[in-house]
Amino acid sequence: MLRTHTCGELNISHVGQNVILCGWVQKSRDLGGMTFVDVRDRYGLTQLVFNTDTDFGLRESARQLGREFVIKASGKVIERTSKNAKIPTGEIEIAVDNLEILNSSRIPPFLIEDETDGGEELRAKYRYLDLRRNPIRNNLVLRHRMAQEVRKYLDGLGFIEVETPVLIKSTPEGARDFVVPSRMNPGEFYALPQSPQTFKQLLMVSGFDRYFQIVKCFRDEDLRADRQPEFTQIDCEMAFITQEDILHIFEGMTRHLFKTVKDIHFGAFPRMQYADAMRIYGSDKPDIRFGMQFVELNDIVKGKGFGVFDNAELVVGINAKGCAEYTRKQLDELTEWLKRPQIGATGLVYCRYNSDSTLKSSVDKFYGEDELTNWAAAFNAEPGDLMLVLAGNADKVRKQLNELRLEMGNRLGLRKKDEFAPLWVLDFPLLEWDEETGRYHAMHHPFTSPKPEDIPMLDTAPGTVRANAYDLVINGTEIGGGSIRIHDRDLQALMFKHLGFSKEEAQKQFGFLMDAFEYGAPPHGGIAFGFDRLCSIFAGLDSIRDVMAFPKNNSGRDIMIDTPSTISADQMTELKIKTTV
Amino acid sequence: MLRTHTCGELNISHVGQNVILCGWVQKSRDLGGMTFVDVRDRYGLTQLVFNTDTDFGLRESARQLGREFVIKASGKVIERTSKNAKIPTGEIEIAVDNLEILNSSRIPPFLIEDETDGGEELRAKYRYLDLRRNPIRNNLVLRHRMAQEVRKYLDGLGFIEVETPVLIKSTPEGARDFVVPSRMNPGEFYALPQSPQTFKQLLMVSGFDRYFQIVKCFRDEDLRADRQPEFTQIDCEMAFITQEDILHIFEGMTRHLFKTVKDIHFGAFPRMQYADAMRIYGSDKPDIRFGMQFVELNDIVKGKGFGVFDNAELVVGINAKGCAEYTRKQLDELTEWLKRPQIGATGLVYCRYNSDSTLKSSVDKFYGEDELTNWAAAFNAEPGDLMLVLAGNADKVRKQLNELRLEMGNRLGLRKKDEFAPLWVLDFPLLEWDEETGRYHAMHHPFTSPKPEDIPMLDTAPGTVRANAYDLVINGTEIGGGSIRIHDRDLQALMFKHLGFSKEEAQKQFGFLMDAFEYGAPPHGGIAFGFDRLCSIFAGLDSIRDVMAFPKNNSGRDIMIDTPSTISADQMTELKIKTTV
Repeated sequence: MLRTHTCGELNISHVGQNVILCGWVQKSRDLGGMTFVDVRDRYGLTQLVFNTDTDFGLRESARQLGREFVIKASGKVIERTSKNAKIPTGEIEIAVDNLEILNSSRIPPFLIEDETDGGEELRAKYRYLDLRRNPIRNNLVLRHRMAQEVRKYLDGLGFIEVETPVLIKSTPEGARDFVVPSRMNPGEFYALPQSPQTFKQLLMVSGFDRYFQIVKCFRDEDLRADRQPEFTQIDCEMAFITQEDILHIFEGMTRHLFKTVKDIHFGAFPRMQYADAMRIYGSDKPDIRFGMQFVELNDIVKGKGFGVFDNAELVVGINAKGCAEYTRKQLDELTEWLKRPQIGATGLVYCRYNSDSTLKSSVDKFYGEDELTNWAAAFNAEPGDLMLVLAGNADKVRKQLNELRLEMGNRLGLRKKDEFAPLWVLDFPLLEWDEETGRYHAMHHPFTSPKPEDIPMLDTAPGTVRANAYDLVINGTEIGGGSIRIHDRDLQALMFKHLGFSKEEAQKQFGFLMDAFEYGAPPHGGIAFGFDRLCSIFAGLDSIRDVMAFPKNNSGRDIMIDTPSTISADQMTELKIKTTV
Repeated sequence: MLRTHTCGELNISHVGQNVILCGWVQKSRDLGGMTFVDVRDRYGLTQLVFNTDTDFGLRESARQLGREFVIKASGKVIERTSKNAKIPTGEIEIAVDNLEILNSSRIPPFLIEDETDGGEELRAKYRYLDLRRNPIRNNLVLRHRMAQEVRKYLDGLGFIEVETPVLIKSTPEGARDFVVPSRMNPGEFYALPQSPQTFKQLLMVSGFDRYFQIVKCFRDEDLRADRQPEFTQIDCEMAFITQEDILHIFEGMTRHLFKTVKDIHFGAFPRMQYADAMRIYGSDKPDIRFGMQFVELNDIVKGKGFGVFDNAELVVGINAKGCAEYTRKQLDELTEWLKRPQIGATGLVYCRYNSDSTLKSSVDKFYGEDELTNWAAAFNAEPGDLMLVLAGNADKVRKQLNELRLEMGNRLGLRKKDEFAPLWVLDFPLLEWDEETGRYHAMHHPFTSPKPEDIPMLDTAPGTVRANAYDLVINGTEIGGGSIRIHDRDLQALMFKHLGFSKEEAQKQFGFLMDAFEYGAPPHGGIAFGFDRLCSIFAGLDSIRDVMAFPKNNSGRDIMIDTPSTISADQMTELKIKTTV
């Protein structure tokens, strides 16, 4: 090693030792006849001191060091006169007797500090410099730690990590595939996996009964903050189990991660039916860090002559505790926010429960103080609270109110990044109607099993059939989802039929899996976690980008390496493809 | 869980317990009024017993079970009367009181047994059945264990696993890239990484000083037994180190694997200069499980009137111990084997050291008993040995003799699969001349640093410049290779120049890396292990296919899922590409 110690490990107990450190110049300052240089590496920061009286030339060299120069310094550990309690090495410094510049540095385009002055684009172009900053580095160290703990936990339970192929087959079901032209099979393509779903099911057929893999997956979709063209899954599958076994084991995994990585100890996670989640929170991934549950008002508001409510399928609201002081302007602004096309509400009804116990609503014309008292009772409201009410089509209004609830949670500081509220959502519908294609789609994927007692409804009321499917939600983000799978050829064929596949299409695309089911497929099920999202939640981030070393931007570009890019005509000739741009 | 125990864990200590097992019917046999069924899972095999006297109907059901049916059986553990010492569960059996068929099975297309009757193609098509066989499953369990141990070892030393991107940039240097058309950037392509080389170097620039990743890599090359279009590397990089540190840490990793996975304990691995390896074994990856080192004969055979030797640049041979009894026919066959175009030798000279101490060569006309005695002395031969000699161009003849040595090693049983001989090969040349393109290529890759003392020769004698590059070889297979990298922009630019890049090309393709070198790049180096090969060597296999769950065949096809395959016209339109087949 070029060094004897890292820049994070020396303390008062090392005083008197001769050491060699390597690292980057964080900053340097002159003070009388001395120069102090902070040298930084992955492990910390150590102060080097150069004294004119001891070695004039050496001190002059130290004065030439620029930010981010890479240096190797040897010297003796001495106790500092003015200590810095904020850093572990703050009690000591190094009286340097030899300094070597391992590499110089141009002036970095932005500050390599926790709070930087670099914009997003600039930092993306110089990602290798952005990665030097503590917050970003810490995210990647956290991610490493989480991956290690996942493997430790699952390995301890007899799970085997099996690598499944990356060059697989394109299937039209689900999101868009990335494809890879095959040179050896001209005119044909591989696809990159959106998940190893069929392979892990085949591994169950093979008898591997406890499989996992931390694995890259790919989706060619339009991007946003929490979507990247390539992302990582903790992909898991088990055989000879029930849904309860899966919930138990992967709740245990999540609990293990919280305990070992964040020292947070959880008891049993709460559980909620999908139908209840939609009714109480208007979302299949409720953020239960805070209450503000939906209150349905049909029974008490209808028939009072207010047409908007009378004609609505559902009148439903939330109690924004302590918000009675909201001004008219604030409420107008909130109404406008709700009416944006992204949310699409037609309006907002409010009712203030003033601190003097009077009630004042935006629909006083239709509802007197007595009726508003009934509202307050329904909302369990107290003086100082603000009731916010929406009305309309039940599905739509619940979605709108979900957005409002989350927004109010944000405004009231109820969604704290260092608080974690995991929740199982159970019994998802098997199918969902897609307006665009005019047919049912698999809500989870086509391999999810319906609840046996609901199978008869597949023909009569497909939309009401429940699946053996479950999601793990943390803080309003779906971080894992899975299901008990179909392991029977006939039932799988029936599913494909209901999804609009012809027999031939089903056989062409998934014949290998249905064939496999005929050779002794065990009952099985599994779950997949979005590892990037899980890491970002643990790191308290909104975006998954900063838990990835080299993310792509919203156009799918890596602007650091400048890709995607054109390829040579020779390459295309060899692959027997042409672009049609 | 549907079961209380696995099929591998019950023994005499469980007698009397009521248990439930799940698994596959391995075989069943009737014996008087009893039926015995072996039920198999990943963990082992347990015998179920059904007795007509106890339950006629149940026994009749058991008789209906076919091979590979999936069953759930409950009953009591009883001691067997006739024990089977070969399996851990051989002292007990289960007196079944309830049997459930979880799934039936068609008759499998080949035997699910250690020795199967299925051909390669058939087993590939039904890979999910082949994976049920113990030898294949054991390989994947071994692979999992190795990956876990690699991570444990490196994590223990402060290495951070960082995921680098799979959608990267195509570069013409090296092997052929797989490319991925970008829908969002029409006319442009990503490439799949041949290795994360530049990213791991950028991580060093970022200060991550100890990086590793077990990662899929891709090469669009023509395939053979130990090559697959996608393969897995243990990819590692360190900063602030010397070559010696890398050798030390990764020798430690290899030793750790041998110890924990195979209970084989190694001392320090031997080391050899590249030049010596070529001289003594004619290979940069010598199999040192056996000696049979090359003996150069120029000094003793030249000038005796035998033109073949006189005109040869090098006369060199090996001593095949104990092969003096080889018949003329065997020697002719060996000569023909050497003359095949794959090897290309022009002939073989031999000299028998007979057990009666006489010497008999194929060139007696030119060399008398006295001279042959000199040969024997040079070869350190004893009565019973056979000296095999080739002559010609030094480089070519060494390669040919390497093949002959390995072949003789095989014939003499000196290459035992359960013996392991690791070896470091050091000081590889920086460049190698490529006849086809008429220019030098990087022997390792363009980022490898030349030995500082050899840099002046870059202009005068590029072929003799040595690199700070090293390979780890086990049993004649290169399983790891690495180098100390260039971390200086000017030296990197010089390297690109010598590799025939114009300034513009170098900047276009690797500008991001050279730019990064200007912002404080630390000295760094690393190594990458071929994880598939490492697993196959540990498993005693010749091919890497059976340490992969779903390998592709020699045409790059997965015949189980039938890929690559055509994609829809819509997909191509959206990607703005066309095939030109």
